[in-house]
Amino acid sequence: MTDENWLRTSVGTSDADSITVMGRDVAGELMGNVTLTELAFLVVRRRLPSEGEARMLDAVLVSLADHGLTPTVLAARLTFTGAPESLQGAIASGLLGSGSVFLGVVEDTARFLGAILEGETSDLAAAAREALAEHPGRVPGLGHPIHKVEDPRTPRLYAIAEETGTLGPHLRLLREVAAAHGRGLPINGAGVAGAALADLGFRAELLRGFALLARTAGLLGHLAEEMDRPLGMPLYREVDERAEYEPPPRES
Amino acid sequence: MTDENWLRTSVGTSDADSITVMGRDVAGELMGNVTLTELAFLVVRRRLPSEGEARMLDAVLVSLADHGLTPTVLAARLTFTGAPESLQGAIASGLLGSGSVFLGVVEDTARFLGAILEGETSDLAAAAREALAEHPGRVPGLGHPIHKVEDPRTPRLYAIAEETGTLGPHLRLLREVAAAHGRGLPINGAGVAGAALADLGFRAELLRGFALLARTAGLLGHLAEEMDRPLGMPLYREVDERAEYEPPPRES
Amino acid sequence: MTDENWLRTSVGTSDADSITVMGRDVAGELMGNVTLTELAFLVVRRRLPSEGEARMLDAVLVSLADHGLTPTVLAARLTFTGAPESLQGAIASGLLGSGSVFLGVVEDTARFLGAILEGETSDLAAAAREALAEHPGRVPGLGHPIHKVEDPRTPRLYAIAEETGTLGPHLRLLREVAAAHGRGLPINGAGVAGAALADLGFRAELLRGFALLARTAGLLGHLAEEMDRPLGMPLYREVDERAEYEPPPRES
Amino acid sequence: MTDENWLRTSVGTSDADSITVMGRDVAGELMGNVTLTELAFLVVRRRLPSEGEARMLDAVLVSLADHGLTPTVLAARLTFTGAPESLQGAIASGLLGSGSVFLGVVEDTARFLGAILEGETSDLAAAAREALAEHPGRVPGLGHPIHKVEDPRTPRLYAIAEETGTLGPHLRLLREVAAAHGRGLPINGAGVAGAALADLGFRAELLRGFALLARTAGLLGHLAEEMDRPLGMPLYREVDERAEYEPPPRES
Repeated sequence: MTDENWLRTSVGTSDADSITVMGRDVAGELMGNVTLTELAFLVVRRRLPSEGEARMLDAVLVSLADHGLTPTVLAARLTFTGAPESLQGAIASGLLGSGSVFLGVVEDTARFLGAILEGETSDLAAAAREALAEHPGRVPGLGHPIHKVEDPRTPRLYAIAEETGTLGPHLRLLREVAAAHGRGLPINGAGVAGAALADLGFRAELLRGFALLARTAGLLGHLAEEMDRPLGMPLYREVDERAEYEPPPRES
Repeated sequence: MTDENWLRTSVGTSDADSITVMGRDVAGELMGNVTLTELAFLVVRRRLPSEGEARMLDAVLVSLADHGLTPTVLAARLTFTGAPESLQGAIASGLLGSGSVFLGVVEDTARFLGAILEGETSDLAAAAREALAEHPGRVPGLGHPIHKVEDPRTPRLYAIAEETGTLGPHLRLLREVAAAHGRGLPINGAGVAGAALADLGFRAELLRGFALLARTAGLLGHLAEEMDRPLGMPLYREVDERAEYEPPPRES
Repeated sequence: MTDENWLRTSVGTSDADSITVMGRDVAGELMGNVTLTELAFLVVRRRLPSEGEARMLDAVLVSLADHGLTPTVLAARLTFTGAPESLQGAIASGLLGSGSVFLGVVEDTARFLGAILEGETSDLAAAAREALAEHPGRVPGLGHPIHKVEDPRTPRLYAIAEETGTLGPHLRLLREVAAAHGRGLPINGAGVAGAALADLGFRAELLRGFALLARTAGLLGHLAEEMDRPLGMPLYREVDERAEYEPPPRES
Repeated sequence: MTDENWLRTSVGTSDADSITVMGRDVAGELMGNVTLTELAFLVVRRRLPSEGEARMLDAVLVSLADHGLTPTVLAARLTFTGAPESLQGAIASGLLGSGSVFLGVVEDTARFLGAILEGETSDLAAAAREALAEHPGRVPGLGHPIHKVEDPRTPRLYAIAEETGTLGPHLRLLREVAAAHGRGLPINGAGVAGAALADLGFRAELLRGFALLARTAGLLGHLAEEMDRPLGMPLYREVDERAEYEPPPRES
């Protein structure tokens, strides 16, 4: 059942004289010519992005990179407190909380839009209304606990999509969904990021990976700061002092 | 002993109307204008890079992003095999092996050069000779198991450093060290990356973090490929079939 | 909405003279008197297990601890290859693949049985038949790719459950489900472990945690072995040599 | 250079009829007869422990399992906040901070004592004095920030070692070291655990692994509690509200 020829890859290889990534010579073709973002696009889409696609992907990544002292950042900094010699452990710890609660929206929005786009979509507004009628209740990508009126990333990402020629069906449809929903809920940054990544051609299963790449950059900043003015140890000390201990009832 | 004012950060924050990273408005100033690489520089160095610095940092990151089916990539793909629903776990697993064996050289080279640069360095060649005389034995940053004659990344990175005006004391000194060593060992890609990152102003303790950022991009490619043509499961099956079981001697 | 009194715990605390876990003095009451397994039961169920419960829980943990060179074990050993100085990273890497593919069955079986047990269950055989009629297709806990006729752990765990007086409704029902299914599929070790853990009073969301505890013990053995006769590096070398590189088609 | 016969293991294997760990049939010999602690001893030492060794190892593990809301526990709970569907991620995150700062003492103490024991040790008190004279400054295993007079685990572990006949050279020497040091610093729980594990025959490189096993049990309790009364989200909210944002000076 397994493909006989399973031990193969297109991502990268190296020999005595060269290192190759996606069929391109790393030293001769890629270094100095492409950004890390373009490389990430290349290894996933198996082709280099256009200038517009690269700018759009960077805009999405920058929008996702950091939101301050979030639970995942705190986990990374607290992990660094105990194991400063293993930066990889602190970063891994900071990525592991990037699960359904905070990043689910990116993927859920892409999936929701993708399912609608598989049907008849000559009239996006009608398709949006129909989808909302079929799925009453919470719509992925709409509403934000802090940015209640407008998520500042949303209009900016739409503007960049226009400028770069990457405004695709997912982004267009998401705008129709928000309009059809009609309760003033703003399109949130995670939702618009999901739609934008889907328009860049990435499958829903992988979208979280781009958020993780972006957050790794943000975590570098937090860990650099943690080295200079630690927050993990005083946070632990305060929690330890303030925490009330409640022994469970004794049965035996 | 703890700073009373420990609960503060410069990295990021957000309120109802805006998201801020390192004092810059994410939507208004950063999105569409900076790359993820420039953002990573910003959050660590607390200022945006020049165009030359950004290009140099991208070149370093691209040089570190992927080297094919390495142990860390295999760990990520095998983790995905068991938990495909948690991409963050596969990426974390792929980062956790980025420790002393493969990435130590990046930091060791930067530290070795940094220690020399703290002394008298009006004559770099002399400083290199002196350091080698004091530290006989293996020199961090020299030699490579595969690229025995020349690591293709090394001359390219020096060329980009020249072009971008980022050829600093660490890179200059590393070249003198290789010359003074005089046994034909090439400067390896990890060593030159370490020197380049040090010249970009990053401290040794954080250099590994940039390698981790680069590798996260590479891992996205491997996990995208793993979704289409899995390597983890057949690798496990082959190992399981071929492995010889050796029970230990029974004492009791 | 948040409980004002959120900063509290029953698990553990310490002061100048004592360390307390679940209301018990660690030095005076627990050390020397309870096993790690009994402690794990205590911190989750908030009471110590009976002798029978402890023996049953140990039997379940022992059944889950190791199955040779599985994908998660390989991930741990490959991670150790790159970062031998961070044992915590290798173990974390070995746990991260414990997701839906291999451990899902433990939880799925417990949930499937638990849902049936919420209904009318005066006649377990009838309840099993009814549930199978309602859920045609694959039944969690039945069938195994290697142990096609009988999973050796299953009869043993039922026997220990009888001996220890811990044969509860989940285990009883699972037996009826297998009988009602009637296609000769054996109850697998993961399924019986899930039912047994549910009968010990652990909720479905936490069952995976016990498998992770068991596997951590198994990983210690693999990492001890890896220190003496490494498997990670030669595995990587063989993969690297045998892997075929397939560059993607060039578009530009 | 690589052993030709590298693809082998003694830890575990399975075939259609049986599962084997360290040469023992899991269903027939181990389940119902050994605890998880005994299994952990077996896979590392390649033999089952005596009753006394098992009791001693359990006592050490119980002493290390939980110390309340420590940085690693907070990291685990904050990771669970974002990814409750991946318990393995929360536990991995909780293990990753088990590095040099908190667990280093366990290993450092074992190494310090082991190095002394390699020399002349007919008179342990003299050997201790000599070692302290040679290594002035901080002695691993002595002193504790909270348990300033006596760590409650220390006398208990020595008593259990006496009772179980496992009081070996590392534990004896550690007592002499504390006496020779003579400044009233108590032997701390991590130090005595390190000495005890060394006396049980585990090498220094692996000691951290036993602490990780113990902490996994403790983490189960914290994550069970987190499911019922979450601490991660309110902790984040409070941090987010209280944190002061300090933008860096703008250069451009």
